[in-house]
Amino acid sequence: MQRFCTIAFVLGLILMIFGLTYILPIATSLYFNDAMTEHFTNGMLLNIGAGAILAGLSMRWRGDVKTRDGYLLVASFWILMAAAATLPLMWGLPELSFTDAFFETTSALTTTGATVFVGLDSLAPSLNLWRHELNWLGGLGIIVLAVAILPLLGIGGMQLYKAEIAGPIKDSKLTPRINETARLLWMIYAAFTLICIVSLKLAGMGWFDAICHAFSTMSLGGLSTHDANIGYFGSPTIELVLMGFMLISAMNFAVHYSALHKFSLKPYLTDPEAIPMLAVITASVMICSIYIWYQQIYPDFLTALRHVSFNLISVSTSGGFVSDNFRLWPPFVIWWILYLTSITACTGSTGGGIKMFRTLLLWKQAGREMFSILHPRAINPIRIGDMPIPNKIIFSVLAFIFLYFISIVALTFALLFSGLDPLSALGAVLACINNAGPGLSLVGTASNYQGLSDFQTWICVIAMLLGRFEVFTLLMLFTPAFWRK
Amino acid sequence: MQRFCTIAFVLGLILMIFGLTYILPIATSLYFNDAMTEHFTNGMLLNIGAGAILAGLSMRWRGDVKTRDGYLLVASFWILMAAAATLPLMWGLPELSFTDAFFETTSALTTTGATVFVGLDSLAPSLNLWRHELNWLGGLGIIVLAVAILPLLGIGGMQLYKAEIAGPIKDSKLTPRINETARLLWMIYAAFTLICIVSLKLAGMGWFDAICHAFSTMSLGGLSTHDANIGYFGSPTIELVLMGFMLISAMNFAVHYSALHKFSLKPYLTDPEAIPMLAVITASVMICSIYIWYQQIYPDFLTALRHVSFNLISVSTSGGFVSDNFRLWPPFVIWWILYLTSITACTGSTGGGIKMFRTLLLWKQAGREMFSILHPRAINPIRIGDMPIPNKIIFSVLAFIFLYFISIVALTFALLFSGLDPLSALGAVLACINNAGPGLSLVGTASNYQGLSDFQTWICVIAMLLGRFEVFTLLMLFTPAFWRK
Ligand SMILES: [K+]
Ligand SMILES: [K+]
Repeated sequence: MQRFCTIAFVLGLILMIFGLTYILPIATSLYFNDAMTEHFTNGMLLNIGAGAILAGLSMRWRGDVKTRDGYLLVASFWILMAAAATLPLMWGLPELSFTDAFFETTSALTTTGATVFVGLDSLAPSLNLWRHELNWLGGLGIIVLAVAILPLLGIGGMQLYKAEIAGPIKDSKLTPRINETARLLWMIYAAFTLICIVSLKLAGMGWFDAICHAFSTMSLGGLSTHDANIGYFGSPTIELVLMGFMLISAMNFAVHYSALHKFSLKPYLTDPEAIPMLAVITASVMICSIYIWYQQIYPDFLTALRHVSFNLISVSTSGGFVSDNFRLWPPFVIWWILYLTSITACTGSTGGGIKMFRTLLLWKQAGREMFSILHPRAINPIRIGDMPIPNKIIFSVLAFIFLYFISIVALTFALLFSGLDPLSALGAVLACINNAGPGLSLVGTASNYQGLSDFQTWICVIAMLLGRFEVFTLLMLFTPAFWRK
Repeated sequence: MQRFCTIAFVLGLILMIFGLTYILPIATSLYFNDAMTEHFTNGMLLNIGAGAILAGLSMRWRGDVKTRDGYLLVASFWILMAAAATLPLMWGLPELSFTDAFFETTSALTTTGATVFVGLDSLAPSLNLWRHELNWLGGLGIIVLAVAILPLLGIGGMQLYKAEIAGPIKDSKLTPRINETARLLWMIYAAFTLICIVSLKLAGMGWFDAICHAFSTMSLGGLSTHDANIGYFGSPTIELVLMGFMLISAMNFAVHYSALHKFSLKPYLTDPEAIPMLAVITASVMICSIYIWYQQIYPDFLTALRHVSFNLISVSTSGGFVSDNFRLWPPFVIWWILYLTSITACTGSTGGGIKMFRTLLLWKQAGREMFSILHPRAINPIRIGDMPIPNKIIFSVLAFIFLYFISIVALTFALLFSGLDPLSALGAVLACINNAGPGLSLVGTASNYQGLSDFQTWICVIAMLLGRFEVFTLLMLFTPAFWRK
């Protein structure tokens, strides 16, 4: 009983905070006079009202948030939030089905950035802004935001923080207090977003587009206000600015904090993930540009380099913007980019996939194993950067990878079972589970998933949620052990 | 110096044994009078001569076979043997390129069973028999045979045995002496082969076809003397016999020994792998048959069941026979069968892939990890069957899976780079690395790889060798640690 009251209480509080985020689309709607004000106001009142009732009723019996409750809370809040966020969309677009609306909000919140909407350019500005704001809130995590601004969550804040933030090592605290850490991360995130807005404006975007795209850049969400995505602008300057901020977002925000705090670039050099990530991206851009240039897809090398750089950085970091129809590129390049999506982004970034840290750890573990066949008695601990990695973490990473891989296989077969062709199926699952966005073939490189059936859409929704919660958090809720006393 | 003399000595001995295996095609050639006798006799003399010179020269300085030399020896012998075995093919078929000949012998020896030959039905009988005999020798391993019949290899026999036999747990000895174990395994293998020959003859095959197909059934090789493979016979009885012997071959031969020794079926029930393997296959056959029947690929359910049973059992155990052009089946069924190929066969069988034992271990490890998130302090060892699995083995299995997966990714990208389409590329790599045989699209379900370029053919050769040696043995030779003193 106390357990459920605790969950209900925290759920109520975060729901109220989420209600406050409707202010931005309401302001946008008033500014552009796009007739959506009423829908967003109703949505806000509903969220705040429901949250207040939930928190008020359960307040008296609440206790501390336990480890397992943290997972249940985070998972149920995200599903609740995705459902609540559909309301303004469905009220504003009466022909939209609940399945499609839920896909759209889940895609935005998990920063997948895939869309089922066509005609984004003529969509009401407040609805477009709402999609981008959901991208932004999901990027660093709205529950992390709640931990940051509600000191009373301090009781179980650590559990919630751990369940929502991405990466294998989650207790690397910037400060001894978790609220403080969450607050610092969100401040850096917001500051970079502001700089990104101004940079995009200077690069030639209008203010509205600059705000929307800064939201989807910093969260590595990849949503756009245009059907043609970044191809709409056709501007190398804008592409350069986006590439820079996507790379920033794909790094660990704790490293950004250290760099800013010490006013030095050294934290980037000593971070075990940043350099390998940049090395993988640089090498891939060079190889793919030469390959594409050699195949004469573009008239000259510089054009090939421009399009490969932008789309490869964008998709591999799980950003998901596209500047050109890269579906027409040779399969080698397309699939290499989709593969990079799984491994490139860093721990503690807003990106998806298995993360560079786990990739490095797998390499080293495989090497250690070969060494130990030759030298069975040698003890040979794994180090990443300066950090010796205990076996406990290696086991946990390996189990993660296995579940991640099994999820990909199971979801791909579910799509195949429903009749989708193999390339579209695998492409869609990789794009969704890595929260990247652009898929292949039927689901298209412009991240448009409109052609899917309802069943297929729900499979993609599951993939996005599994990806955002790094598999464990969600799968755990389906084990008997979780529900045992 | 002593190290290389030891390797040369053992290499010479096994080469001489391999030379003796030419007797069978020589006899066949004499019986059918197909003008190949001279080629096989020359091949035999060359093998025995070269082996004798090698062994003779190095005899005086030989020592014990060390762990790392075992791997080097097995890998270099297999490549040498595949090269030597091409000679009768190239002398007999002057238009055959070395690349294609090497593909053919590697495919036969690794029991992949893919072919670049067209016109098998009119090929000289002795050449066909040679291909099937290579299948059979590769199945349980010719070096294991050498260990069985040469007591003097007892010095390093264990190292060689470990390097060639398949599966994560290789020291499960049937008897305290490794020669004895190797001999028992080969005796069971030969006995089953004899029973299979007689059964196939009774089911309607001619003696020659029965011998050839028994070789490729017990080794799970999948080669046939007909372009249409098993479809040529169009006989449900033959298909039933083949299915039975493929299932036998996909089980651990040590379990067969126990069952025969105790004259009881209990060893199959207590074996941790046999029941899960049969369960996976039965469930898959039912689901796929219903799916295919529902899609009206075949006129009635029984026909669907017949074709699905045969092709699914054949490909998933890595047998690789095909009775129908299953390329025309729905992608869900095709890819499910290709996926099963990676996980179905048991440790100590003649099948390929990661083996059922490792599959079970991965599942349990993932479950244990989820449990330990909820109960961080609980100690929860993994058991498979009655066997508690030490962490050391779990680590080694996990590293194996990672290298296996990375090999698939790297080889698929190599094929994509060369211009092959994605489905053919992934299909060919899975078919080769799992030593299954039938690929997809371009490379066809009749296991014919003739359409590949030379570069693509060599990639497939690497995949087959990596699969047969379970990745480690081969990759280890490319690490600096291996060559360090
Ligand atoms: K994205
Ligand atoms: K095979």
